Amino acid sequence: MAPAITLLTDFGTRDGYVGAMRGVLLSIAPEAPQITITHEIPPHDVARGAFALASSAPWFPEGTVHLAVVDPGVGGPRRAIVASAHRQLYVAPDNGLLTLILAGDAEARTWSIERENLGRAPLHPTFHGRDLFAPVAARLAAGLPPAEVGPLVEDAERLDLAPARRRGRRITATVFNVDRFGNVTLGIAPADLARLGLGDPPRLALQAGQALPVVRTYAEAPPGELVVLWGSAGFLELAKDREPAAPELGVATGSSLTLIDEDS
Amino acid sequence: MAPAITLLTDFGTRDGYVGAMRGVLLSIAPEAPQITITHEIPPHDVARGAFALASSAPWFPEGTVHLAVVDPGVGGPRRAIVASAHRQLYVAPDNGLLTLILAGDAEARTWSIERENLGRAPLHPTFHGRDLFAPVAARLAAGLPPAEVGPLVEDAERLDLAPARRRGRRITATVFNVDRFGNVTLGIAPADLARLGLGDPPRLALQAGQALPVVRTYAEAPPGELVVLWGSAGFLELAKDREPAAPELGVATGSSLTLIDEDS
Amino acid sequence: MAPAITLLTDFGTRDGYVGAMRGVLLSIAPEAPQITITHEIPPHDVARGAFALASSAPWFPEGTVHLAVVDPGVGGPRRAIVASAHRQLYVAPDNGLLTLILAGDAEARTWSIERENLGRAPLHPTFHGRDLFAPVAARLAAGLPPAEVGPLVEDAERLDLAPARRRGRRITATVFNVDRFGNVTLGIAPADLARLGLGDPPRLALQAGQALPVVRTYAEAPPGELVVLWGSAGFLELAKDREPAAPELGVATGSSLTLIDEDS
Repeated sequence: MAPAITLLTDFGTRDGYVGAMRGVLLSIAPEAPQITITHEIPPHDVARGAFALASSAPWFPEGTVHLAVVDPGVGGPRRAIVASAHRQLYVAPDNGLLTLILAGDAEARTWSIERENLGRAPLHPTFHGRDLFAPVAARLAAGLPPAEVGPLVEDAERLDLAPARRRGRRITATVFNVDRFGNVTLGIAPADLARLGLGDPPRLALQAGQALPVVRTYAEAPPGELVVLWGSAGFLELAKDREPAAPELGVATGSSLTLIDEDS
Repeated sequence: MAPAITLLTDFGTRDGYVGAMRGVLLSIAPEAPQITITHEIPPHDVARGAFALASSAPWFPEGTVHLAVVDPGVGGPRRAIVASAHRQLYVAPDNGLLTLILAGDAEARTWSIERENLGRAPLHPTFHGRDLFAPVAARLAAGLPPAEVGPLVEDAERLDLAPARRRGRRITATVFNVDRFGNVTLGIAPADLARLGLGDPPRLALQAGQALPVVRTYAEAPPGELVVLWGSAGFLELAKDREPAAPELGVATGSSLTLIDEDS
Repeated sequence: MAPAITLLTDFGTRDGYVGAMRGVLLSIAPEAPQITITHEIPPHDVARGAFALASSAPWFPEGTVHLAVVDPGVGGPRRAIVASAHRQLYVAPDNGLLTLILAGDAEARTWSIERENLGRAPLHPTFHGRDLFAPVAARLAAGLPPAEVGPLVEDAERLDLAPARRRGRRITATVFNVDRFGNVTLGIAPADLARLGLGDPPRLALQAGQALPVVRTYAEAPPGELVVLWGSAGFLELAKDREPAAPELGVATGSSLTLIDEDS
């Protein structure tokens, strides 16, 4: 069985872009199952793409090739890269889209795609997804060793995802994601609690004073009330039961949110 | 050829949830084709999920495993179940999502998923789709007999889908679905006509008096006019030609609608 | 390896329609990979479907079967057709959906689907996608020669896609697509330049006078400024860097747009 190729893009699903890319994958790697992660990353939103990739890629088997294209700088000087991390392969523009993947594996390696004849010639300057990234992903799925795409690079771009920080009793964190249900994922993992001086579970309140009960499941939240829980991607989450939490908090993906540590 | 696994959820397609679930399926059942029915069930809308499942599952071959997750009570006391019906298998939370499937097969059987080691340990309390339902669906596709997941249960949850009823000349039915085109599917099947005292085709009118011509196809509807026809899922449908019918009727999925029997 | 079947429809992804069609494909051609091009063609928008198909189908391998259903006249007198073009097969209603595909291959042939027993009997009059087009596509993928579906036809429907035209210094073109990013694709290909009296690259301006710089990539556009470039589907495109161009132009798919030739 050929390894699967996953697709994650900001191309949307209304145009012919995804189809063109899938046709290229099928032409080069006909045996590789193609599995969509999402094509609904908001246009050009590299940070949100990075989070969606990091919360789904770990669940795929060894050898999976992840094709990730959120590429506002297409055709410009940004490099195209292949990364090897967590026994999987990644193909992406070098713009930070792999930040969370690379951060999670100290053994990760990254190569710049420079060898000739890997993609279509000539590359169309506005669609490297179809003409370069897809052909490279398909060749990797068909057995091309990643080191053959070009030289190792040590300086792959990383997003500046501001780590959560404490000032007095105030904890400020980045909103990593507002999901479809309006649940709000913060950039606080269990490993961050000690550094932030927070207990586990952390007892937090809104700046206006309202305490946030800690629950295990959405259904445990009192009706209409904001609660805190550990989300399924391993980060702290603010949520309500069967209604979105984001509107009351006034946050969106990429916002920062300040809460009060009730234990201090 | 391994049986296919279909996916039907309310997870949307913007986040990493679907990808995570598909990665788990691929890890356990790499040979099973994965086929999306929909991930766009409105959040927590079990009834709409039940209808979408019932209108697509019958078209899949014997042995198909349907993984259906619309699960507002995730992590709470609701059971997780496997059902065998129509020579196919279903994995779902026990909250009524299988109502229409189970209603359609007098031989259907249902088991509660209780055996240990079928899912991930520990289960994340907010994502049983990834940690329990997907692993069980993949194991079924790989050959696990459904009876091995746990004890038979006789009391699977059923949605209270109020059957259409007659009062005098008034027929009141539940709106099973408003589809993408604005067509309105009512909970009236051919088998209900006699009980409701309706002819076939039924001659119906709006409460305001406007008669609803009966047609075979959308294109037969006079421009702008509401008509009645038998929809492709086997239920009575109200529609217009190339425009949505729902706005004029003021209904949405789950509404009830009262019409007048013109024959009585 | 069985040829793949692609799917392009206006069915949306919220209902059970796509699932039903995929179940039929799987039942008849279980070995054929199923690849979604899009289900988000706006309801009944045959022209937009034609463009999405033409911009993705060429990237699939020989032998691929494209199942394309945007079918406002379902159940009425319009024919159902199979086409052979570019060493691929197409199954669609005969309403112009294949216009761009057929225009691109002088050797293309088209057959009317008339043989009995190719689809479900009886056909449901409102869902030929499930009951006729999908079964035919699956049978073609499983080896049925296209000439066996029915008689050759020479008069397949073509959309009247008004070619770009020149009047004095004014060039008027049809907007073939406004994509997810707000980029505006015009019906002007390199082969049209000489006929239109345009240079290559064409130096164009808005009617209000603003010149449109010609660039190679989106990132080369000055911030906020409209530019012209050759898009990845082979047509002239108006765009901005990281923001939609369509709102300032006031156009949508199917609009016409008049520009000024600055070279004359």
